[in-house]
Amino acid sequence: MALYIDYAEQVQSLIASGALPAGERLPSVREASRRRGLSVSTVLQAYRLLEARGLVEARARSGYYVSARAVHYPQRPDPPALAPAREAGVPVDRSRLIHAVLDASRSRELMPLGSAFPDPRLFPLARLRRSIYRGLRHADAHQSVEDLSPGNAELRRQIAIRYHLDGYHVDPNEIVITHGALEALNLCLQAVTRPGDSVLIERPTFYGALQAIERLGRRAVEIPVDAETGVDLADLRARLARFRPAACWLMPTFQNPTGALMPAPAKRALAELLAEYEVPLIEDDAYAELYYGDQRPPPARAFDTSGHVLHCGTFSKCLAPGYRIGWAMPGRHTARVMRYKLDSTLAASLPAQVGIADYLAGTHYDRHLAALRAELCSRRDRLIEHLCRELPADIAFTRPAGGYVLWLRLPAGIDARELHRRALAAEVAIAPGVLFSTDDTFNNYVRLNYGHPNPAEIAKGVARLAEIIDRWHRPNPASRHAR
Amino acid sequence: MALYIDYAEQVQSLIASGALPAGERLPSVREASRRRGLSVSTVLQAYRLLEARGLVEARARSGYYVSARAVHYPQRPDPPALAPAREAGVPVDRSRLIHAVLDASRSRELMPLGSAFPDPRLFPLARLRRSIYRGLRHADAHQSVEDLSPGNAELRRQIAIRYHLDGYHVDPNEIVITHGALEALNLCLQAVTRPGDSVLIERPTFYGALQAIERLGRRAVEIPVDAETGVDLADLRARLARFRPAACWLMPTFQNPTGALMPAPAKRALAELLAEYEVPLIEDDAYAELYYGDQRPPPARAFDTSGHVLHCGTFSKCLAPGYRIGWAMPGRHTARVMRYKLDSTLAASLPAQVGIADYLAGTHYDRHLAALRAELCSRRDRLIEHLCRELPADIAFTRPAGGYVLWLRLPAGIDARELHRRALAAEVAIAPGVLFSTDDTFNNYVRLNYGHPNPAEIAKGVARLAEIIDRWHRPNPASRHAR
Repeated sequence: MALYIDYAEQVQSLIASGALPAGERLPSVREASRRRGLSVSTVLQAYRLLEARGLVEARARSGYYVSARAVHYPQRPDPPALAPAREAGVPVDRSRLIHAVLDASRSRELMPLGSAFPDPRLFPLARLRRSIYRGLRHADAHQSVEDLSPGNAELRRQIAIRYHLDGYHVDPNEIVITHGALEALNLCLQAVTRPGDSVLIERPTFYGALQAIERLGRRAVEIPVDAETGVDLADLRARLARFRPAACWLMPTFQNPTGALMPAPAKRALAELLAEYEVPLIEDDAYAELYYGDQRPPPARAFDTSGHVLHCGTFSKCLAPGYRIGWAMPGRHTARVMRYKLDSTLAASLPAQVGIADYLAGTHYDRHLAALRAELCSRRDRLIEHLCRELPADIAFTRPAGGYVLWLRLPAGIDARELHRRALAAEVAIAPGVLFSTDDTFNNYVRLNYGHPNPAEIAKGVARLAEIIDRWHRPNPASRHAR
Repeated sequence: MALYIDYAEQVQSLIASGALPAGERLPSVREASRRRGLSVSTVLQAYRLLEARGLVEARARSGYYVSARAVHYPQRPDPPALAPAREAGVPVDRSRLIHAVLDASRSRELMPLGSAFPDPRLFPLARLRRSIYRGLRHADAHQSVEDLSPGNAELRRQIAIRYHLDGYHVDPNEIVITHGALEALNLCLQAVTRPGDSVLIERPTFYGALQAIERLGRRAVEIPVDAETGVDLADLRARLARFRPAACWLMPTFQNPTGALMPAPAKRALAELLAEYEVPLIEDDAYAELYYGDQRPPPARAFDTSGHVLHCGTFSKCLAPGYRIGWAMPGRHTARVMRYKLDSTLAASLPAQVGIADYLAGTHYDRHLAALRAELCSRRDRLIEHLCRELPADIAFTRPAGGYVLWLRLPAGIDARELHRRALAAEVAIAPGVLFSTDDTFNNYVRLNYGHPNPAEIAKGVARLAEIIDRWHRPNPASRHAR
């Protein structure tokens, strides 16, 4: 584990234990550095991590203080324990429910706290449009035939360069351009599993995994996700040994829906464990570029030495929503994924490919990303501020260090599907927890998107949810305004 | 059957029987009209159809004459009879072979007689580029989120209008925009079949059907395709009754690879037969716009009154190769196909959707199509001219009335896979017949593309094939130049 994470976790446990109460000032960076024998930058990184987690706040010219919110923050919305008798892989039947909820949430009239997408106004659409025009003008007519899968050579080269800049070596020849990460994930799943096979997924999980498992006739083995650190490795080892899944489909970085971020050492151990069991890891890294810290968290793929990790990325969350350009780096399964891509959808769309390649070759991407990350982080804080202020004290929620969704356990007695229905009537969309697992375990949870609604919508959306929750158990609708 | 087709077939059978020998002049249009009680335009249409089929030629100021080529034309390259003991659905294992052949054929250095694509220089790429720019400028940022499946509303409206102009009523709300026809076909197959189910396909068939059946774990039941008129309905009825397939996947218009065109009455009977057996028809109508006659042949879908036809179309062959924009109209299976589209690749690419929608709203499309059809028809005649002149007399081939591929039975003793290898060495790509069925039945057949190679490449490509065939059985390579 990196030194700063180690130090941050020590401080965090002091806060959790009450030894460092709300309002208490942390030792100054210099002082902690001297006393612990750590470099100044290590201590600073640790304090910033704690700040990102919402446990401390920086005050100008004064230092870091334990946050008032930290008082209930350690109550993490971890999932209930699984009943021990779960079978080795259950068939999935959630697609109708998921679609019914998503379809109902799609109108532009609703405040989009239930959305899976970021605010499209945060993206450089005009520059991308010019990049497409330029890219197509320079494209040779034959590219329409030649840029079949695995995809446009320049785009693959640019993607490889982005990984290099973050310190990861990638061979452009391993990259398969796809219609977004969703197609990449689906192709990888088809490449490493057969109908009837079991697939290990997170609990809660991205509903796209549930839909793929259902549509393709696979079975699900669920593993609980710690709302802060992701899946537990001892637990994972036990499930691998017991259920022998044909693949794992995980999201180790800013997990959807919890926002959990597996620490780098855990990712390394994850890669080693799956190599030991020879189980392929389908790694959904869709939110990788949306980190609020100093650098991109390493993907599990960075620790893969045996080709077992099928890594999937996308531009849909960080650059060009709607363009449907993602990619797979399928390790030892590359040839098969390339074939499946050719067989099922042939190639990605030429205009979007050459447009993004042209944009990446320019100088704007890093500036755009920096602005996007800052905006998403600020909207996260705005949402949390309103949640703390307006909802009852017995809620619990995550404070993701990246992405744009958080996971919230509702006050006692609130049913998320019913809340979803009542919220829709008040023109607010939320994503009820039942979308994110094979059963109704998470019926008292919701996923809230803070990257699509703007700050005013966040404020208004939370206020309306608070009003609905407030009158939940009142039998008489006439009492609505008596509050 | 339309009157002109009926009359054309009568004349054709006279030619086939030898009653009208090569060089014989047909009755003048006026004379035939008077004697048969047909309108002048009906007779003219019939003569043009016979001309399109290569059976007669028009001579200026003189009339129509039985073509010299017609002498061997009636020898159609119909498939060998199926061994009667074929099982009810065989597993498919052709994907590696197909990919090996296609990968070897992909280089720009090769003369592309093996290509599946049209010549990209035949398309309005500059206009499309401007349409994308305009479409994206007018697009609202929220479209990137809202134009999820089933797709961009204006594009769906424009597609529906195109069908209306051809006389077919289509509800835009039934149209699901996909990543090309290939995705549409794959989604439809998944929507109406389960792993292990049997799917009735043509023999020979488009290899995309074989790949889908293999990848998705279905089984294939093959039905022979008459090289001119497609599948035989009595035969189809027998197979439906005997094998009870879960679906049929057919290409009734300009079938790939034969170019066969089912007559309209046969399409009507096909739709009725499948409704009777309650078997869904996945109709691949990818080449529909590439007809050389006066009007678009009706799709089987036009005769579907019960929602059993899942109709699939595309812009990849007629307007925008590489853009990956196609569509499905899945009849009673629409809701499921829409869900599967959302689950597997979410949506089609926004720039390509708005670009094509903008282009279709303009005035250029019909002119582009007219020019494209004329060019493809002319290239077909060029290819046939060279085949007749340069290859041995015991070949047989189709003369499609649309699309851009024909199907050729090789001279006796020539193995198509070996011909493919030798042709590659001479920088010519062909598509050997083994790509188009579950077994090696068609090892003495090839599919030739005349829409991708230009006229010079067609001439040179056929000359090289002729040279290879000529020296096929000569043991001594030194004899090569002794010809």
